[in-house]
Amino acid sequence: MPKSKKRSLKNINTPPGTVVYDGKKQDIKSTVSHSIYSADKIETTFIRNLDELAFLPEVVNWLNVDGLHETDLIEFIGQNFELHTLILEDIVDTHQRTKIEIYSDCIFTVVKQIRVKEQADDLLEIEHIGIVWKKGGVISFQELSEDAFTPLRSRLQHAQGRIRQRGNDYLYYALLDSIVDSYFVVLDWLSNRLDSLEDTIFSKPEQQHLQEIQRNRLALMHMRQAILPMRDALNKLIKDDLPLEFDSRTETYLRDVQDHIIQILETIDTYREINSSLKDIYFNGLSYRMNEIMKVLTIMSTIFIPLTFLAGVYGMNFKFMPELDWKYSYAIFWIINSIIIITLFIYFKRKKWL
Amino acid sequence: MPKSKKRSLKNINTPPGTVVYDGKKQDIKSTVSHSIYSADKIETTFIRNLDELAFLPEVVNWLNVDGLHETDLIEFIGQNFELHTLILEDIVDTHQRTKIEIYSDCIFTVVKQIRVKEQADDLLEIEHIGIVWKKGGVISFQELSEDAFTPLRSRLQHAQGRIRQRGNDYLYYALLDSIVDSYFVVLDWLSNRLDSLEDTIFSKPEQQHLQEIQRNRLALMHMRQAILPMRDALNKLIKDDLPLEFDSRTETYLRDVQDHIIQILETIDTYREINSSLKDIYFNGLSYRMNEIMKVLTIMSTIFIPLTFLAGVYGMNFKFMPELDWKYSYAIFWIINSIIIITLFIYFKRKKWL
Amino acid sequence: MPKSKKRSLKNINTPPGTVVYDGKKQDIKSTVSHSIYSADKIETTFIRNLDELAFLPEVVNWLNVDGLHETDLIEFIGQNFELHTLILEDIVDTHQRTKIEIYSDCIFTVVKQIRVKEQADDLLEIEHIGIVWKKGGVISFQELSEDAFTPLRSRLQHAQGRIRQRGNDYLYYALLDSIVDSYFVVLDWLSNRLDSLEDTIFSKPEQQHLQEIQRNRLALMHMRQAILPMRDALNKLIKDDLPLEFDSRTETYLRDVQDHIIQILETIDTYREINSSLKDIYFNGLSYRMNEIMKVLTIMSTIFIPLTFLAGVYGMNFKFMPELDWKYSYAIFWIINSIIIITLFIYFKRKKWL
Amino acid sequence: MPKSKKRSLKNINTPPGTVVYDGKKQDIKSTVSHSIYSADKIETTFIRNLDELAFLPEVVNWLNVDGLHETDLIEFIGQNFELHTLILEDIVDTHQRTKIEIYSDCIFTVVKQIRVKEQADDLLEIEHIGIVWKKGGVISFQELSEDAFTPLRSRLQHAQGRIRQRGNDYLYYALLDSIVDSYFVVLDWLSNRLDSLEDTIFSKPEQQHLQEIQRNRLALMHMRQAILPMRDALNKLIKDDLPLEFDSRTETYLRDVQDHIIQILETIDTYREINSSLKDIYFNGLSYRMNEIMKVLTIMSTIFIPLTFLAGVYGMNFKFMPELDWKYSYAIFWIINSIIIITLFIYFKRKKWL
Amino acid sequence: MPKSKKRSLKNINTPPGTVVYDGKKQDIKSTVSHSIYSADKIETTFIRNLDELAFLPEVVNWLNVDGLHETDLIEFIGQNFELHTLILEDIVDTHQRTKIEIYSDCIFTVVKQIRVKEQADDLLEIEHIGIVWKKGGVISFQELSEDAFTPLRSRLQHAQGRIRQRGNDYLYYALLDSIVDSYFVVLDWLSNRLDSLEDTIFSKPEQQHLQEIQRNRLALMHMRQAILPMRDALNKLIKDDLPLEFDSRTETYLRDVQDHIIQILETIDTYREINSSLKDIYFNGLSYRMNEIMKVLTIMSTIFIPLTFLAGVYGMNFKFMPELDWKYSYAIFWIINSIIIITLFIYFKRKKWL
Repeated sequence: MPKSKKRSLKNINTPPGTVVYDGKKQDIKSTVSHSIYSADKIETTFIRNLDELAFLPEVVNWLNVDGLHETDLIEFIGQNFELHTLILEDIVDTHQRTKIEIYSDCIFTVVKQIRVKEQADDLLEIEHIGIVWKKGGVISFQELSEDAFTPLRSRLQHAQGRIRQRGNDYLYYALLDSIVDSYFVVLDWLSNRLDSLEDTIFSKPEQQHLQEIQRNRLALMHMRQAILPMRDALNKLIKDDLPLEFDSRTETYLRDVQDHIIQILETIDTYREINSSLKDIYFNGLSYRMNEIMKVLTIMSTIFIPLTFLAGVYGMNFKFMPELDWKYSYAIFWIINSIIIITLFIYFKRKKWL
Repeated sequence: MPKSKKRSLKNINTPPGTVVYDGKKQDIKSTVSHSIYSADKIETTFIRNLDELAFLPEVVNWLNVDGLHETDLIEFIGQNFELHTLILEDIVDTHQRTKIEIYSDCIFTVVKQIRVKEQADDLLEIEHIGIVWKKGGVISFQELSEDAFTPLRSRLQHAQGRIRQRGNDYLYYALLDSIVDSYFVVLDWLSNRLDSLEDTIFSKPEQQHLQEIQRNRLALMHMRQAILPMRDALNKLIKDDLPLEFDSRTETYLRDVQDHIIQILETIDTYREINSSLKDIYFNGLSYRMNEIMKVLTIMSTIFIPLTFLAGVYGMNFKFMPELDWKYSYAIFWIINSIIIITLFIYFKRKKWL
Repeated sequence: MPKSKKRSLKNINTPPGTVVYDGKKQDIKSTVSHSIYSADKIETTFIRNLDELAFLPEVVNWLNVDGLHETDLIEFIGQNFELHTLILEDIVDTHQRTKIEIYSDCIFTVVKQIRVKEQADDLLEIEHIGIVWKKGGVISFQELSEDAFTPLRSRLQHAQGRIRQRGNDYLYYALLDSIVDSYFVVLDWLSNRLDSLEDTIFSKPEQQHLQEIQRNRLALMHMRQAILPMRDALNKLIKDDLPLEFDSRTETYLRDVQDHIIQILETIDTYREINSSLKDIYFNGLSYRMNEIMKVLTIMSTIFIPLTFLAGVYGMNFKFMPELDWKYSYAIFWIINSIIIITLFIYFKRKKWL
Repeated sequence: MPKSKKRSLKNINTPPGTVVYDGKKQDIKSTVSHSIYSADKIETTFIRNLDELAFLPEVVNWLNVDGLHETDLIEFIGQNFELHTLILEDIVDTHQRTKIEIYSDCIFTVVKQIRVKEQADDLLEIEHIGIVWKKGGVISFQELSEDAFTPLRSRLQHAQGRIRQRGNDYLYYALLDSIVDSYFVVLDWLSNRLDSLEDTIFSKPEQQHLQEIQRNRLALMHMRQAILPMRDALNKLIKDDLPLEFDSRTETYLRDVQDHIIQILETIDTYREINSSLKDIYFNGLSYRMNEIMKVLTIMSTIFIPLTFLAGVYGMNFKFMPELDWKYSYAIFWIINSIIIITLFIYFKRKKWL
Repeated sequence: MPKSKKRSLKNINTPPGTVVYDGKKQDIKSTVSHSIYSADKIETTFIRNLDELAFLPEVVNWLNVDGLHETDLIEFIGQNFELHTLILEDIVDTHQRTKIEIYSDCIFTVVKQIRVKEQADDLLEIEHIGIVWKKGGVISFQELSEDAFTPLRSRLQHAQGRIRQRGNDYLYYALLDSIVDSYFVVLDWLSNRLDSLEDTIFSKPEQQHLQEIQRNRLALMHMRQAILPMRDALNKLIKDDLPLEFDSRTETYLRDVQDHIIQILETIDTYREINSSLKDIYFNGLSYRMNEIMKVLTIMSTIFIPLTFLAGVYGMNFKFMPELDWKYSYAIFWIINSIIIITLFIYFKRKKWL
């Protein structure tokens, strides 16, 4: 069974707003990339000298940070762009749940990238991602070095779709959309896993199957917990007064993302039902096999017990047992046995045990 | 067990608003039909030359597209009638859930036609249908070539009912109503299936019955998921400010559709209860049979075990066993056996095992 | 198990507002009665000539129709009193759920009379009743010929209570109240049924008891579905602007009816709990009996298996078996047997198996 | 199992507002007491002459009626104090659920006093109590002769607490508070009952324990049903416009009562969880014992079956069986037996069956 | 199983507002400490002379009381700072649930400190803590002598974080935050406990494991009950008009606390799921072992029953049994036996029982 996700105790009993990374240890150095683009050009640079860190005017700015474990870096970026310390705390707190918060000068979003990564203790890898949309640009913070936005980058590069024509609001939407899209890949993998597990359980239920079912249950539960808050959070973007404005065309797209979220949540519910019905099938398999075992025992016992008794009777040493001296006793003994066997056989057939 | 409906991965990582069909492969060409009618005449033409595509004035216009796999066609119609790209995306996205969306110039509806189609992996076929009601006419998009609106067409043809007297709003309502009506056919089939399954399980529970129960469970769940969003969506039509107006007489009919939806959802709940009680009956059947098996084993063993012991005793070869030499020992042996059998028989009768 | 209530397919694919009766076939002709009363007189006539059908002024008018299968009659009454076609459709649609609808000139109510009628497939008979309260009088439509309002009629006749002093609003309330009162009779019968079923299951669980439990479950579910919508519907009468006015004294009585509904729903919930606990008791009975059976088998086997082995040992034909020649071997054999039996007996006593 | 509480059918089919007592038969005569008090004096008289029944001015008036079965008396009091007939109906209708109703001239409250009274069919005795707070005084109606307000009376008598300084509103509050306090006594008893039941089930599960668990379940359910409506009802007192005014100091106390109610409801939920876990423990006990029984059977059978077979082999009468004539055959037979026994013993030890 | 928390009956039937301590007996004397601090200095004194008890101006005042059993002390403090008697009652009523109450001159908070303390009857120790924030300072009341605020105190001492720069509102927030932080420690312990319990159950399920599971269930339930009300209570602080004002910077921190609460509640839900899946694993272990036992019995019986019968046959004493005299009978007997054993062995292999 996957271990329950534990919150590291590192940032307990520290003052609130302290920037303490509590995710997995990372060996690789954090990297910062800065993409600027407009309809006609796009340029991405990896920033080494942090002093150059600033949004350029009149283009769309996308700053991306890979790796949250270098908290100095995060704090420096925070000071540079004047982010609230609680934003910084949430960016590195990988247990922070999904949310969208409206600050007076920016929109801060926590989302979870979900990848299939079958480990000893979990089926899914849930990556913590923070997105800040400020006047002038969007900053994304990724926990792991594996880039969550590769497909989006290639669309940007190839000037595919309408993204290069639009502003920062559309970039912000595109980041959310790209993460939501990735959930479908996980659902697809889960669907295949459930189907093949069912086939295996049905042909031969084994004790470890129950553990597989529990792993699915937890994976679906963690996935649901990571996605569910998004449904309501998106409402805020659609209904609240925001410090930054969405193009009216972008709003329709936000509603589309929300639609996908609801669809994903429904699919998760379906999978949970299927998974719980796997448990029924598993336990039914156990019961059915028990029935089979008992049937074999009962049939064998019921047939041979009277025969053995009969053999025992004629093994007795009483002096006066007339049958012992009859000539055809032994043949009659076998005839009687055959009759008993046939009778019981018919009886079991009728009972549908055979 | 029916496989869980998988979303094709084709339209993941494409820009939003991309028109990608993700349903089953279709061999037949898409067809477009245009029906125009008023109180005194009706005319339906199959359109081959797409340039002629336009709503005629002063009559009710109904444009129907069969087959969503030719996305070029869908896109052409979209441009022709100025539909939002997200509408087009939803029309061909067969996994889009049921919804009603109010755009500034049209009302867009996604509904699901449900048909009984017992396949290897599913009991029901859920067809994706998009309906756009614009000023001037109604356009319906059907995923499959089988026409979902046959009864409505014949009512139109025969000038039956009030439909020919009314406008586009009534046509829009009639399309919804016609789909909701078809759900009753599915419910009727399910009701028969549940009844006959129960009889079979009761007379002889087999291991595959559990799978049949799971198939029902999923079919009912998918049906519920397809219908449930409709209940709230209809509220929008009744309560919201719409860009197109319903005749006040039509509004009463919308409330009637909503009433039917609630009735269908209640029936689905009843069927889910019945289906889950089938599981109880199935498992009870297993337990009961186990009980029967054990009873047979126990009765046979309990009767013959002491008799066999007794026979064993007198099969011993001790030199000094006075009974062996008595004249009536053998007869007494049988008498004792009979007494044991009768006593146990009475005991089992009292225990109500016989 | 009671069959799930099926909607007849007759009125599918007909235009909405079509008056199609879908209940059980009725052999008896429909009858129409007209009662008029005031504080000092009451008169009830059976109407044969439908042209006379009209509300009289300055008295309370109660028109009652028994039997919904003559749709011509219903339609004639509908036209005569200018009822909306959807009201007529709902009056004869016996699957229409309980509701109260406020029309611009009348209040239309669908309620369900519930009677105990133990049939092959159901425990309860649910009768569809429509009540229209228009300016001038109240019209009630009953599906079955058995009068649902007998006690009310006798109260009217004997000028008992305050009903004769009051107007049409009180009559409308009295009809509702009279149906709600009848639910208590059904609950009383169900309570007795549950109690006696429990006694039976406890003394000897049989396989058909599970079916009885399922029948109760469905009956309680249908009853709940028939009554639940009433709770909210009554709120409309109390809170909404109505086209007809309730005497302020009558309003208090409406709240009283709502109170009764809530009380009935709570009792139904209690009965559902009791019924589901019957299932526990049933399955526990099965398990317990299984335990008993296995105990008997184990005790008998455990006692006789070593004895039989011992007898077998001394039935062996080895030449050199010193015990065979000893004088008291046989007596010692029985002594050893007795010791084994007593030891095991004590062991089982300690284990509390005896 | 406790019988489900049945509503007597006496007051069905009577006009609404009819005063029909439907509780248990009472042998004792109803009594009416009248307490008047102010800060400096208190006086309680038992009223025999009903004509004297009136509230005295400038003191707090508390009229208490014990016994609801003399409906004449209730009706007389009702007329005397001008109470609505529906109030009277609810006062004597012992199945009326808990509620607070705001009338134009009084506040009418139905509450339930709960006492532990272990009878054949129920664990708790639920007493119906009606409280009317009118301008001038408070009238309480108790179903049973056992006084629900004894502790309150003694506090009044001894001028303990602030009650003697306050008015009718505080008296009304004190009556409610006193009933809510009594629930804690019941919870305490239930807690002890659950604890001791668990110990018993754990040491030796018996079939009747399941019934005890069901009795707890129903008792907790009835208790919950009696208390739950109070939570919302108290909101009315706090938020609604009332015909009578609470001292602002008393309002804080009302919120305190509501707090207690929520605390009681939470405790009931905890007890329901504990009770349902008792069922798990019970069924686990059954399974575990079954396992034990089967283990004994299997160990005994598995050990002796091969031994008995071996003894049977050397009991055969074949002419040519070399072993029979060997000198140490018999000794070897026992050695082999010992080896078999030891081997199996080790096997069972490894399997952890011993 | 942990005993359900019982409310002491001491404060039933006492006037409301009576200060009665109902927690565990405490041997140690209560202590009162007074901390005053500003940005540049901090001073904590233990107060012995209660007359000195007062808030100092222009610094942050934190009065902390350890031990609620000396009710005189609590009452004295209450009078000194003019606290409502109901606040005092709630401070010493250790069963009072978590809440935040807005009084006209102060904000009163009840929270629960949770510590891991594995006792005979419970896994967690839930400490009752009352916090009053009045103009001028904050007073905290702790049930147990173990200080709940140690980490906060050390942060204060070392001028760590922003706490020394801020006012009473921030102190009030810091107290809440410090308690919420401590919940993570408990969750961490529970997570380890669940993991190790699972390993144990999986390797060898024992009857007492079910009890461990029930203990977890209750612990999680009590924890949830202690924390859940906090979620909504914090809303009051954020949205309501308060008699004392939060610094606008502090408000953001309050939302952060609420975030943590939601995260904790989600984790509790996950643990409840895991715990309930432990029950599945436990019961599955029982079933699986039963299957194993029955398999051994059946295999042994099925193999030896026919062999024993055969041996019995040739132990019969019939005069005319030709086989007895054949030379190779005995060898053939063993050959037949071997064939039977091998056949059955193959059969069981195919059935996958071996």
